[in-house]
Amino acid sequence: MYELGVVYRNIPRADGATADALAQFGSATVHEAMGRVGLLKPYMRPIYPGAQVSGTAVTVLLQPGDNWMLHVAAEQIRPGDIVVAAVTAECTDGYFGDLLATSFKARGARALVIDAGVRDVRTLQQMGFPVWSKAISAKGCIKATLGSVNIPVVCAGMLVTPGDVIVADDDGVVCVPAARAVLTLEAARKREANEGDKREIFASGTLGLDYYKMREGLAKAGLRYID
Amino acid sequence: MYELGVVYRNIPRADGATADALAQFGSATVHEAMGRVGLLKPYMRPIYPGAQVSGTAVTVLLQPGDNWMLHVAAEQIRPGDIVVAAVTAECTDGYFGDLLATSFKARGARALVIDAGVRDVRTLQQMGFPVWSKAISAKGCIKATLGSVNIPVVCAGMLVTPGDVIVADDDGVVCVPAARAVLTLEAARKREANEGDKREIFASGTLGLDYYKMREGLAKAGLRYID
Amino acid sequence: MYELGVVYRNIPRADGATADALAQFGSATVHEAMGRVGLLKPYMRPIYPGAQVSGTAVTVLLQPGDNWMLHVAAEQIRPGDIVVAAVTAECTDGYFGDLLATSFKARGARALVIDAGVRDVRTLQQMGFPVWSKAISAKGCIKATLGSVNIPVVCAGMLVTPGDVIVADDDGVVCVPAARAVLTLEAARKREANEGDKREIFASGTLGLDYYKMREGLAKAGLRYID
Amino acid sequence: MYELGVVYRNIPRADGATADALAQFGSATVHEAMGRVGLLKPYMRPIYPGAQVSGTAVTVLLQPGDNWMLHVAAEQIRPGDIVVAAVTAECTDGYFGDLLATSFKARGARALVIDAGVRDVRTLQQMGFPVWSKAISAKGCIKATLGSVNIPVVCAGMLVTPGDVIVADDDGVVCVPAARAVLTLEAARKREANEGDKREIFASGTLGLDYYKMREGLAKAGLRYID
Amino acid sequence: MYELGVVYRNIPRADGATADALAQFGSATVHEAMGRVGLLKPYMRPIYPGAQVSGTAVTVLLQPGDNWMLHVAAEQIRPGDIVVAAVTAECTDGYFGDLLATSFKARGARALVIDAGVRDVRTLQQMGFPVWSKAISAKGCIKATLGSVNIPVVCAGMLVTPGDVIVADDDGVVCVPAARAVLTLEAARKREANEGDKREIFASGTLGLDYYKMREGLAKAGLRYID
Amino acid sequence: MYELGVVYRNIPRADGATADALAQFGSATVHEAMGRVGLLKPYMRPIYPGAQVSGTAVTVLLQPGDNWMLHVAAEQIRPGDIVVAAVTAECTDGYFGDLLATSFKARGARALVIDAGVRDVRTLQQMGFPVWSKAISAKGCIKATLGSVNIPVVCAGMLVTPGDVIVADDDGVVCVPAARAVLTLEAARKREANEGDKREIFASGTLGLDYYKMREGLAKAGLRYID
Repeated sequence: MYELGVVYRNIPRADGATADALAQFGSATVHEAMGRVGLLKPYMRPIYPGAQVSGTAVTVLLQPGDNWMLHVAAEQIRPGDIVVAAVTAECTDGYFGDLLATSFKARGARALVIDAGVRDVRTLQQMGFPVWSKAISAKGCIKATLGSVNIPVVCAGMLVTPGDVIVADDDGVVCVPAARAVLTLEAARKREANEGDKREIFASGTLGLDYYKMREGLAKAGLRYID
Repeated sequence: MYELGVVYRNIPRADGATADALAQFGSATVHEAMGRVGLLKPYMRPIYPGAQVSGTAVTVLLQPGDNWMLHVAAEQIRPGDIVVAAVTAECTDGYFGDLLATSFKARGARALVIDAGVRDVRTLQQMGFPVWSKAISAKGCIKATLGSVNIPVVCAGMLVTPGDVIVADDDGVVCVPAARAVLTLEAARKREANEGDKREIFASGTLGLDYYKMREGLAKAGLRYID
Repeated sequence: MYELGVVYRNIPRADGATADALAQFGSATVHEAMGRVGLLKPYMRPIYPGAQVSGTAVTVLLQPGDNWMLHVAAEQIRPGDIVVAAVTAECTDGYFGDLLATSFKARGARALVIDAGVRDVRTLQQMGFPVWSKAISAKGCIKATLGSVNIPVVCAGMLVTPGDVIVADDDGVVCVPAARAVLTLEAARKREANEGDKREIFASGTLGLDYYKMREGLAKAGLRYID
Repeated sequence: MYELGVVYRNIPRADGATADALAQFGSATVHEAMGRVGLLKPYMRPIYPGAQVSGTAVTVLLQPGDNWMLHVAAEQIRPGDIVVAAVTAECTDGYFGDLLATSFKARGARALVIDAGVRDVRTLQQMGFPVWSKAISAKGCIKATLGSVNIPVVCAGMLVTPGDVIVADDDGVVCVPAARAVLTLEAARKREANEGDKREIFASGTLGLDYYKMREGLAKAGLRYID
Repeated sequence: MYELGVVYRNIPRADGATADALAQFGSATVHEAMGRVGLLKPYMRPIYPGAQVSGTAVTVLLQPGDNWMLHVAAEQIRPGDIVVAAVTAECTDGYFGDLLATSFKARGARALVIDAGVRDVRTLQQMGFPVWSKAISAKGCIKATLGSVNIPVVCAGMLVTPGDVIVADDDGVVCVPAARAVLTLEAARKREANEGDKREIFASGTLGLDYYKMREGLAKAGLRYID
Repeated sequence: MYELGVVYRNIPRADGATADALAQFGSATVHEAMGRVGLLKPYMRPIYPGAQVSGTAVTVLLQPGDNWMLHVAAEQIRPGDIVVAAVTAECTDGYFGDLLATSFKARGARALVIDAGVRDVRTLQQMGFPVWSKAISAKGCIKATLGSVNIPVVCAGMLVTPGDVIVADDDGVVCVPAARAVLTLEAARKREANEGDKREIFASGTLGLDYYKMREGLAKAGLRYID
């Protein structure tokens, strides 16, 4: 890692129906269903609250202060994709604004996840094009140095391979490897099925201590109650 | 500090009516009324805007990546409490989500203040259960190592003793020691009484320079005006 | 830099009509129109979303934890001004709240840009007085040490000279030197004129690669496509 | 917390011989002997490498950018003390330099632990007066606002009560409550006695896996080896 | 990414002679020879100055506050290896000290690269066992939750695959994929051969402007000289 | 601010003898002599301890990840200069290494102050060419976009005008405007004259409380002593 100056055009993508179905569970449940791996660092925040999406990853490796490759990536987007952008060095510049968002949307992209900055955030919210980013910055970018499209990248501390499923909401961004998407969806469904009942049980006053039978383990670990 | 593996069950709490009455003044006024002490570090932010609460502290000391003790704490909550959680090392994991919030709410808790991460933030907002935290993260926690409940803890740089009054709003979180709650309430009331008039006076164009009679002090300090 | 203990009363301000007209373009377009200079660091964030303003700078140099000079600055505000406040050392204290905001508004100020903290943020939003700041903090300030008003200051990494034009919105804060305000406005207008068409072109599916004729440059730089 | 404007003169100090004896074990061993509590946040770093000290805490609460109370604290120092300084808000100013160090040393202080900045660091190294701090800064301080001396303070996230034992070296700073000093010293001695043997055992090639009999636990937890 | 609870025993390693030979060039030259990719984030710093090493990566994925897997990793070390440790969440705890270092050294490890904290740093320096880390912390770790050994990990923002070559010195840490080690070594040698001459040329007063023939490019880009 | 693509060749420099004489006082004393202004942010640290220099500023404005203008700046260096480099956006890349240092040294530069990263730090130490920087990074730079040389820049939060005097040591970096250099030197000399005596007075046990006659002010401020 990393190959520079290449664009992989025909990447294998996770099954579309599976990728679509993961959105409804949200990042926390999917992260649990993955066995607690796959989460991007929590400094990745949505530019506006309330968006919840999933899709297949088109990846981009960018150079600091240079958004040339986002234009290259636009052409590789297919409906249902989420663009995941990494930078070769830490940078907060605004790589992406309303024009690129218009282009991405026209190609069928559902969101952008970028380990850098974005701008035109109010317009992006009006357009309904969600972005998870490290920063918001009015600073634009040059177009001078090649990066790559659709190579494996590390975005906010997580490896993302082209075609992986991305799930993002107000809690953060999770990457589900394509090969594990089906199993993860099943696990998420099972987990969710249990949650509904639990909510009522806890609302009625039952404690997790009792529901999860934690008291014995706590006592064994030596927990002492003092009146 | 700190005793590990203990739960204090019967803690003295600040007077309930006093604790309740402090909410309306907000953290800034209460912080002033305290003589400008008691504020948690400003990186503690509400997960949604607009909540303004006060209550008596149930404290929890957590281990990194481990939320076992939040379940233990739930049992110690009484109506009107606010749970204050510290961690033995810096951690941004999502210690708390909608199920624990359901449990806390069922016990009468008004809020959580946690020097770590939370998740399910959209659901928490829908439930109306406010949280002030250092981070938002989809990452869940294990249940393996003991901490403590209702011991004095340092949360975001401030000592919080069980039973102290917590006041939190969009400006931050303040801790009022139980023994000073009544005096602080009085001071807050006095302060607030003055503020209403001041707002009108300043709105009419009177300057703070004149209202607070600052000109003499500034001149004495050597301030020079240059045209 | 810096002269301490002085207040410059009659500063030359950028032409008011020009200063007013820049607001509509927003910080990103104005930053581009400036040739990509003038942006304050992106840690400067609005305390509430949606405000978009421009105005002429009244500058203040503050001491850490001391807001005395904001009162001095209030008197120097003229309608259409934006107060820009720097601190001689890093500080997150809440230098500014609803009373100072009332005073500033009464004098005709449109906003505050401060490389420190503010408080009463909910009230400020209700009043419609926008602030761009580094932090939100309930902690108030003392009034003990002189700074200056209307000297050149460095705010969030950018030099701001009294009378410069400030443009601020959800994307950040830009400083336009008074001497460049007219040219910047022209450049912003030209830029904006182009943008409208582009939006439609990209929405229809045309790629930036083609619209901006990037393919040749990319090929020359060695970009390879792999199927 | 916190009482402002007071100086407690006759604080109970941990037993001097015990406090002295803890230095040799270093912060890591003492932290383990404490049951893994008491560590100040790891951003506290020595201004020069190689110092290893212990002593009884004289505490100071400072105001941002104001070192008045360090002068007040100097008078309260007794031989064998370590001064522990907290600030009411985050600050990196240089609160302490060669003159205060000369004074502190003349009174018998062994070190300073300060959640802020220091200066004259080269001279401090030449004098052999170690400091653990958050920052190094040439910026001096004013003397305008009261704090307190010998009240409990939170320094770098840890509660320090006057008279507690402080242990500091290149690994960090640990606070041992006076009441636990004797037990902690015993535990540290036991721990250290074991370490010497272990070093040889591991140097000979024996693995911790075998020495600590971890293999069974790992297998039980499900660890799989793949060739 | 990531598989939990597995240890890959027989990983393919980059050729030993190639891995060894890369050390002498240092991280900056190797990073250039790689085409400016492969660098771990610059917050990774050596615990003492002057070490310069290379070796083949044994990777470890750790849980926050839990160093169990470092003991598991020790058994997989072969002479010439460098252990590269990632954590599933941000953590500054001291995962590694003199005992583990003794074990690692006995197995032939040359260094540790860890995206977390270490302790016993003075002893590690005396032992001559270099570590590049994010933090130094006296805080020890529990042994409760499985991670993995010799799976691909993201360490300080860079993907490291078991068997890759790691090059580390005072400038930072670079990862060279095993498949590119030979080519990178050749490129580094060529680059280094040029550097010696250049040093003398520049020492004699020749400017890079002339040596690299930059004047024309600068003029073309529009650079203006003003007297 | 800022003009891009220009190089000012004949800048007025502060008087050489004055600039040279300031080094001996160090950054802390010079900062005091300036009235506590002029300090760059304390994140600027020397790459090795012990250097103490002063000189006249040649300024450079760089683009992120691009060190082209450092080559341009080299030609503008005269003996006794210190190069001060700012970047248009936050960046930690290694802009400067042993070859540029050789060039700078050949031209008579005494040091580099850069609000970004440097590399080859061990070689720089061997060469005795000190650098104060925000980061150390092996990552090199491209040469693609113009900045400027010898325009006023903001470096680490401080305005530096070409020809100003820079004073740097282990405590940090101070900028003395050329017009204030003589007065600052006088003030530094006076200050230093007093310090020598003070050191002996404090070493003999006299307290700052008495020497500076602080007791009355403290009592007036309300300080209470409790036995």
